[in-house]
Amino acid sequence: MPTYQLKYFNIKGLVEPARWLFALAGQPYKDHRFQEGEWPSVKPTTPCGQAPILVVDGKQIAQSKAVFRYLAKQFGLVGETDMDQARGDMIVDYFEDFTGPLRVIRKEGDPPKKKELMAKFMATLPIYLGNLEKLLKENNDGDGFFVGEKVTWTDVVFVCNTEIHKRFLNPGYLADYPKLEALVQRVEALPAIAEWIKTRPVTEV
Amino acid sequence: MPTYQLKYFNIKGLVEPARWLFALAGQPYKDHRFQEGEWPSVKPTTPCGQAPILVVDGKQIAQSKAVFRYLAKQFGLVGETDMDQARGDMIVDYFEDFTGPLRVIRKEGDPPKKKELMAKFMATLPIYLGNLEKLLKENNDGDGFFVGEKVTWTDVVFVCNTEIHKRFLNPGYLADYPKLEALVQRVEALPAIAEWIKTRPVTEV
Repeated sequence: MPTYQLKYFNIKGLVEPARWLFALAGQPYKDHRFQEGEWPSVKPTTPCGQAPILVVDGKQIAQSKAVFRYLAKQFGLVGETDMDQARGDMIVDYFEDFTGPLRVIRKEGDPPKKKELMAKFMATLPIYLGNLEKLLKENNDGDGFFVGEKVTWTDVVFVCNTEIHKRFLNPGYLADYPKLEALVQRVEALPAIAEWIKTRPVTEV
Repeated sequence: MPTYQLKYFNIKGLVEPARWLFALAGQPYKDHRFQEGEWPSVKPTTPCGQAPILVVDGKQIAQSKAVFRYLAKQFGLVGETDMDQARGDMIVDYFEDFTGPLRVIRKEGDPPKKKELMAKFMATLPIYLGNLEKLLKENNDGDGFFVGEKVTWTDVVFVCNTEIHKRFLNPGYLADYPKLEALVQRVEALPAIAEWIKTRPVTEV
């Protein structure tokens, strides 16, 4: 069995979906969270000077989506067919199209600028969420998962991020998208995920 | 054999790597380029309201990277091992980290704002290119391809985009990165690619 180590800050942040994938697979790993001041010495040893990093038997993978996809493959948590896998990739990248800018907005320090960016974001949000609801409904009428018959990393990335979005936007931001909201409930209720949410380190973000 | 159709505007733009993958595989496909005014009627029929779209036997895949990865899998142009595939994904997403903002800068209409964004971009560019050169050298001392022993979609995405970067930044922007520059020459010299470059529709971008 390979040994796995995740290296990241002591937050959910970008890496939380990887922790959910480990939980779903029941796969032991070292969830290494940088101590105060540790990152600068680790940074030059990483492939791209970025965290998170997944270390598999000493080999490093950077970039969160590359990490998730790799883990999902090892754990049987990608779609069964190449077409399902492509649809899964598509949905993750489409979701990232609006999640990326949201990260920029959260970091923006200038209040008027932040307000302007946020207004722009809120105007396009219904388009993104409407399309995601539509894509979900194209598989099992939206009562299952984004692709195939069982949970995949695509559902995990979506649901895991809505945790943060609910906090930052508002807890009811999915109210007009009942299939997406039900997917969130369904994935969070998977026993391994429910257990991880209950027992994971408490962090603000 | 499946039938393939690419749908995109009459530019290289986001989709050109897919065309290079078809060329490398010698795979016939319909390279559908929207006529003036055609896109608005196509847009609502696409998965995410976005182009490019790949249509495979009537099923649609959106999001350029999902399209490239899918085609690369069909054509044997992904890495052999899961680890190589993850490294390939990582390099593409890392490369996208600086290519994405560059697209925003190109579209920025306000000159002072454009100048400010460009200065910021140019300050971080050597970090990205330095890391990409380092990543390339980690495989076959940088004299082969990004992962494994033969060309993959990761090389194609990189090289294809440097065409645009050379034009927008300057033709010599890789001068300090001899392994990256040699990779560009190597991939562009592959007979199928050289032939495509020579015969493809002439477009400005």
